[in-house]
Amino acid sequence: MKKHYLLTPGPTPVPPEVALKEALPILHHRTSEFGAVFSEVAEGLKYVYKTKNDVLIMAASGTGAMESAIVNLLNPGDEALVATCGNFGERWTKLLEAYGCKPTVISVEWGKAVNPADIEKALKANAKIKAVYTQFTETSTGVVNDISAIGRIVDKTPAAFVVDAISGLAGQEFLTDDWKVDVCVSGSQKGLMLGPGLAFVSVSAKAWKLAEEAKLPRFYWDWRKMKKSLATKETPFTPAVTLIVALSEAIKMIKAKGIENVWAENKLHAKAARAGMKAIGLELFGENPCDVVTSAKVPEGVDGGKIVKTLREEYGVSIAGGQAQLKGKIIRFAHMGYIGKADLLVGFACLEMVLSKLGYKLEKGKAVAAAEEVLLNG
Amino acid sequence: MKKHYLLTPGPTPVPPEVALKEALPILHHRTSEFGAVFSEVAEGLKYVYKTKNDVLIMAASGTGAMESAIVNLLNPGDEALVATCGNFGERWTKLLEAYGCKPTVISVEWGKAVNPADIEKALKANAKIKAVYTQFTETSTGVVNDISAIGRIVDKTPAAFVVDAISGLAGQEFLTDDWKVDVCVSGSQKGLMLGPGLAFVSVSAKAWKLAEEAKLPRFYWDWRKMKKSLATKETPFTPAVTLIVALSEAIKMIKAKGIENVWAENKLHAKAARAGMKAIGLELFGENPCDVVTSAKVPEGVDGGKIVKTLREEYGVSIAGGQAQLKGKIIRFAHMGYIGKADLLVGFACLEMVLSKLGYKLEKGKAVAAAEEVLLNG
Repeated sequence: MKKHYLLTPGPTPVPPEVALKEALPILHHRTSEFGAVFSEVAEGLKYVYKTKNDVLIMAASGTGAMESAIVNLLNPGDEALVATCGNFGERWTKLLEAYGCKPTVISVEWGKAVNPADIEKALKANAKIKAVYTQFTETSTGVVNDISAIGRIVDKTPAAFVVDAISGLAGQEFLTDDWKVDVCVSGSQKGLMLGPGLAFVSVSAKAWKLAEEAKLPRFYWDWRKMKKSLATKETPFTPAVTLIVALSEAIKMIKAKGIENVWAENKLHAKAARAGMKAIGLELFGENPCDVVTSAKVPEGVDGGKIVKTLREEYGVSIAGGQAQLKGKIIRFAHMGYIGKADLLVGFACLEMVLSKLGYKLEKGKAVAAAEEVLLNG
Repeated sequence: MKKHYLLTPGPTPVPPEVALKEALPILHHRTSEFGAVFSEVAEGLKYVYKTKNDVLIMAASGTGAMESAIVNLLNPGDEALVATCGNFGERWTKLLEAYGCKPTVISVEWGKAVNPADIEKALKANAKIKAVYTQFTETSTGVVNDISAIGRIVDKTPAAFVVDAISGLAGQEFLTDDWKVDVCVSGSQKGLMLGPGLAFVSVSAKAWKLAEEAKLPRFYWDWRKMKKSLATKETPFTPAVTLIVALSEAIKMIKAKGIENVWAENKLHAKAARAGMKAIGLELFGENPCDVVTSAKVPEGVDGGKIVKTLREEYGVSIAGGQAQLKGKIIRFAHMGYIGKADLLVGFACLEMVLSKLGYKLEKGKAVAAAEEVLLNG
C-alpha cells in the first residue's frame, strides 16, 4: 500500500499513458509496424533535440551512449579536453582513460560552472585536442554549463564538441544545432519520462567525419551500424521494443505540450524550489543553478543521509542526496519530466516534517508557502 | 484491431502478468525496494542458469553481453577459437576482429552442428588459445550444439569456454556448471519471456581470473563493476528498472512451473513442430534440431519472403524467415517462453492457408493434425 512520490533526477516518474504502452503486446522488431514506431521516435527525438542531425538510438544506460562518444570519435592515444564540474564530468575522464586516450582536464570546484574562457585557452594551447567533453546540467551538483558559449568556441576549431545532456535534455532549453553541439548524449529516464534503458546521441557532420576515421575498437557502440538502421528501420541488434514503443507515446505528449512550454514550466518549478529551500533557511548549493534539479546544503547538525531515508521510509517521497564528495552534504529535488507542481509541494511539506523531526528549527508551512507564491505569481 | 500472434525466436510474447509489471509506478534504483528486486532477479537467474556462479545483469541487447565476454577475457592480439554454425556464430568472429584479437574459426555448413572433436584438435594444435566461443542454440538455423561435450574438452585446457545461449537459455536443458561453461551469455527476450533490453552473463572462477588480467579497454561492459553491484545492490549505471521489475515476475512464473517442466514442454512442442512441417511435405532444415525454434525449407517455387509477409499481414502471425545466406530459403517457427500449444496450432493452420494461397499443393488440416497428434500422445 505504500505510495511513492519521485522527486529524483532520474528515473523520474513515468506517466501512466506511457507506462501502459510498455505493457502492450510486444511487436516483433522486423515488422513494418515496429519500423513505423522506430522512425517516429527517431524523428521525434530530433524535435526534442532541436537538431537536423541524425539521432541514434541504443539499448543501454546513458553511460553507454557516453562510451559511444569516445569510441566513435577517437584513436588510441588521442588527446581530448574534459571540462568537469561534478561526478558525471569525471566519468568522461575515466572513459577516456579506459580507452587509452589522453584527457586534459579542466576541473572546477563542485558547485561551480565550467568557464568557457578556460576551454578557449586550453584549445589554443593544444592544437592536437580532437574532442571536447562536458556536461549540460551536471546532475550531481545541480549546475548548468553555458553550452552555447562553449559551442561557439569549439566550433572555430577542428575539435568535436560532445555534451552529456542526459539529465538536461527535454528539461531546459537545449539547442543542439544553434549551439554547435556535435554530439549530444541523452537517456530515456529524465525529461523524456520513461524508464531507463534507452540512450541516444545526435551526430553532426563534423562528428561523422571523425567517426569514419576513428580507430578505437567498437562493435555494439558503432554509430555507423546505427545510422544504417535509421534508413532501413532494421536495428543492428534487437532493440528494446517495449521501451521504444513507450517512448513514442512520451514524445507525443511532449509535442502536444510543446517543448518550449516544458522548458518554461521547469524554469518556474526550479525558481519555486529555490524559494522553498531558502524560506526554511536552507542555503542553496552551487552557482548557476539549472532548471531540472535544485541542490541545497544540509543544515549544520542534521544528518543528510537521514533526511533522504526518512522522507522515503515515512512518506514515500524519494529525493536525492549528494554523490561522492558531496555525500551527506546536500539534498537534491528534481523538477523535470512528469514531476508536477503538486509533487514539488508534497516534497516541501514532507521535507518540513522530516527536518523538524530531525531537530532542525523551522516554521512549518514556510517552504510550501514560498513555493506556492512563485508557482502562482512567477 | 489487428491481433498479433508471435511465433518468432525473440522477441517472444510477454505474459500479461509480466507486461503489467512494466507499467507499475517506477521505483528509484537507489532504494531498498529496488535493491530487493535486483537481488531476487540475480538469484533467480542462477536458478535458470543452473549455476552457483555470479550472473551479471546489464542494460543492453544480447550482443552487448557477447561483447563483454570479449573485453573482459582477452588482451589485444590474443588468440581465440570460434566454432560457428550460423549467423550468430559469425558475430563472435566479427567481435574478436573489432578488438584486434586473432580468431581461429571452425566453421561448419549452416544447418549442421559444431563437431566437438574439431574443437579438441584445434585446442591441441594451438596452446595459445585463451577462450573458446560458440553458440548453444544457433537461432539462425535451428541447430543445437553439444555444449556438454565441448565443455568437457575445454575444461581440460587453460582456455575459458564462452557460450552464447541467448535463444536457448530457459528454453531447453542447459546446465552451466555441470557442462563446465565459464561464461554463458543470455538475454531477456527469449525463454525469459520479457521484452529485449536486458542481457546477462554468468562468470566462473576461471573466467574471473582472466577478467582480472584482461587488458582490452572496457568501461560500460566491465564485469568487475557489475560484480560489485551484486553485493551492494547499487548498479554502476542506472539500471533498466522497469525491465528488471518485470523480469522478477517472469522468473517467479518459471520457478512456479519448474525449469525442468519448461524444458520438457518445449521439447514436446519442437517435436510437434517438426511433425507439422513434415505432414505438409516441408523438408526440415538442418541436423540436430534444437527445442526452441524449428526450421523448414521453403518449398520449390514458393517465395519464402512472401510466406512470412502474408502470414503477418493477413493473419497477424509473425514467424521468422532465413537470415543472410538463408534469406528466402527457410522459415522458422519458435516454441519457447510464452509460446503455447495453441499458438503453435494457430501457426500451422495459418501457414496451411498461406502456402495454399501461394500455390503450394497441400491437404488442409494435415499439419495441424500431425502437431495435435504429438501434443496429445508425445
